[in-house]
Amino acid sequence: MAARFQTTYRIRCPADEIEARAQGIAVEQSVEMPLPAVEDASVLQDIVGQVAEIADLGDGGFEVRIALAVATVGEDAGQMLNMIFGNTSMHACVNLVDVEIPPEFAAAFGGPRHGIEGLRARVGAGRRPLTATAIKPQGISVPALADLAHRLALGGLDYIKDDHSLADQAFSPFAARVPAIADAVRHATVLTGRATRYVPMLNGDRGRMQGQLRLARECGLDTVMMAPMLSGVATLQAIAREWPDFAVLAHPSLSGGGQIAPDLLFGTLLRLWGADALIFANYGGRFGFSQPLCRNLSRRALADLHGLRASLPTPAGGMELARVPELLDFFGRDTMLLIGGSLLSARERIPQEGAEFHRAVETYFA
Amino acid sequence: MAARFQTTYRIRCPADEIEARAQGIAVEQSVEMPLPAVEDASVLQDIVGQVAEIADLGDGGFEVRIALAVATVGEDAGQMLNMIFGNTSMHACVNLVDVEIPPEFAAAFGGPRHGIEGLRARVGAGRRPLTATAIKPQGISVPALADLAHRLALGGLDYIKDDHSLADQAFSPFAARVPAIADAVRHATVLTGRATRYVPMLNGDRGRMQGQLRLARECGLDTVMMAPMLSGVATLQAIAREWPDFAVLAHPSLSGGGQIAPDLLFGTLLRLWGADALIFANYGGRFGFSQPLCRNLSRRALADLHGLRASLPTPAGGMELARVPELLDFFGRDTMLLIGGSLLSARERIPQEGAEFHRAVETYFA
Repeated sequence: MAARFQTTYRIRCPADEIEARAQGIAVEQSVEMPLPAVEDASVLQDIVGQVAEIADLGDGGFEVRIALAVATVGEDAGQMLNMIFGNTSMHACVNLVDVEIPPEFAAAFGGPRHGIEGLRARVGAGRRPLTATAIKPQGISVPALADLAHRLALGGLDYIKDDHSLADQAFSPFAARVPAIADAVRHATVLTGRATRYVPMLNGDRGRMQGQLRLARECGLDTVMMAPMLSGVATLQAIAREWPDFAVLAHPSLSGGGQIAPDLLFGTLLRLWGADALIFANYGGRFGFSQPLCRNLSRRALADLHGLRASLPTPAGGMELARVPELLDFFGRDTMLLIGGSLLSARERIPQEGAEFHRAVETYFA
Repeated sequence: MAARFQTTYRIRCPADEIEARAQGIAVEQSVEMPLPAVEDASVLQDIVGQVAEIADLGDGGFEVRIALAVATVGEDAGQMLNMIFGNTSMHACVNLVDVEIPPEFAAAFGGPRHGIEGLRARVGAGRRPLTATAIKPQGISVPALADLAHRLALGGLDYIKDDHSLADQAFSPFAARVPAIADAVRHATVLTGRATRYVPMLNGDRGRMQGQLRLARECGLDTVMMAPMLSGVATLQAIAREWPDFAVLAHPSLSGGGQIAPDLLFGTLLRLWGADALIFANYGGRFGFSQPLCRNLSRRALADLHGLRASLPTPAGGMELARVPELLDFFGRDTMLLIGGSLLSARERIPQEGAEFHRAVETYFA
């Protein structure tokens, strides 16, 4: 018997079509050809996807579990995504909501190289929740970005990341921006005594990222951000594998409105593929994610998964200082709160607001 | 005045929310922070997105055009996708339906390096439409794949590609598969006198792809396939730029059910970023794409775009030999018909069926 793992889809269709739809996904996500054309009996037995269960959820909704062959994934995160949702993504009425992770995948992908504990250790945080913010807007000069980073760092926050829009544009090229901001943050830490980390955003293809990682290392940095759905999840996997001294924050750009359920994508898949922290659109912010979804995402990121390290759930997107108690009650200690825009709104009081935010988080469970 | 380009979104929401939604996208896809927190007047003027138009489509649907700053994109395809749809992709009720391509983008990205004419020239096809098929299923051995490729090539088809599921799995590792299939196809061309091309599927991150491209070149190949939405569009851009002797077929895996309108994504964006041929889910096949969508995709791929080469529209997905006249009437000469599974269903008659398919296409406009 070839090893299999189950993938779960939610489908909306007429009841008399669901069996054919389920069988269609089983074939599409494995051999993608008419079964009578498959000449090899072992392929029919060991490779072709199998419909494991069809559950009627009512109101025209169904949940379908398909057993796919572990061997079809190999050891490539891109190929895993290809096999669990590649062609099926082109059907508008199908969502991917769960993927069983067999031990083979945990061994092949390795999960976070640092995870929650590594991110805490970097900033000497013990067991407390962490704080983060973002440097923006794009379009200002490198000295202006560095000055802003300095003021943010004076507040003593744990992680200060590039906005995900900061790429390699002419107004703040990566090669000029990163050393300048790294310096500015380092100078602030001398004043604060904190271990605040600057986290640059990687961009472009992996070839460019290699140069960016080398520069980041030269600048004394040990944490970077990337957007795996934009850059390719295989790129995340490669960076986690080949730059193991770096912790990686995953940004949700291009992660979609739920075609792949965000709790699965972030809490399980991106963790499996090596993301140390998972930035996601929190409930009650600018995006429509629900409380249960955010709770599930956080639980998945922290749940036991064949001994892989936990990833750090990092809710973001329209958050405010006043919500710190509510969010920490909801997410608990194992979280990093990311407040960007509302902190920047303090303008000349940025260091004070930052310090207030950090103090609120740092002392909440103390 | 900073140069701007317009992006167009379709949004479903109550009429009294549309102005706020449009303004929200303009901010989200540019500075992603409260505007009162932006300290720099030039950012407000030159970088922050602007709502250019809101059109009521009726029935709760709106079309919104946003003017974004060209400077925010730089010269990176990943960053372009980040700016046109990155965070907004997380809203379930927003689709990206159009993007204006200013001459700066054409100059920066360069479009296809070979395009339709290059793909025709490789196989000595004059002005006729082209034929393609796929080698599958995954799970069979390298000799079995090579034997199948040989039989397909005996039919004299133009392009024979790996199935997109063929990655680097243990049952047919890339390093063993590609030389064996390249040899098998070459031997067949000696018999047929055709210039049939074998097209391997690139997989993994760009680092792995570099090795795969080197091997492909050693095997005398000049055309490869990749899935840009899986591997990252910056990876497509990098391969087009750095391996200009290779033509690149773009596979639609993970391209979604329409959040980014497929005619835009394939016909305009992937073309802009360097794809020489655009494989897409044709109407009347296994996927739900409409005739008008497929026509628009093809028209975009062929339309004038600042002098960039045209990409080759390659309809696929559940097609059959009997549909050749209908499809050529619909798509015209400038197309490549890709028939996979139904050709493989011929089993021992694969060379004859392949030859019949090729002859039907080759002679249709003759």
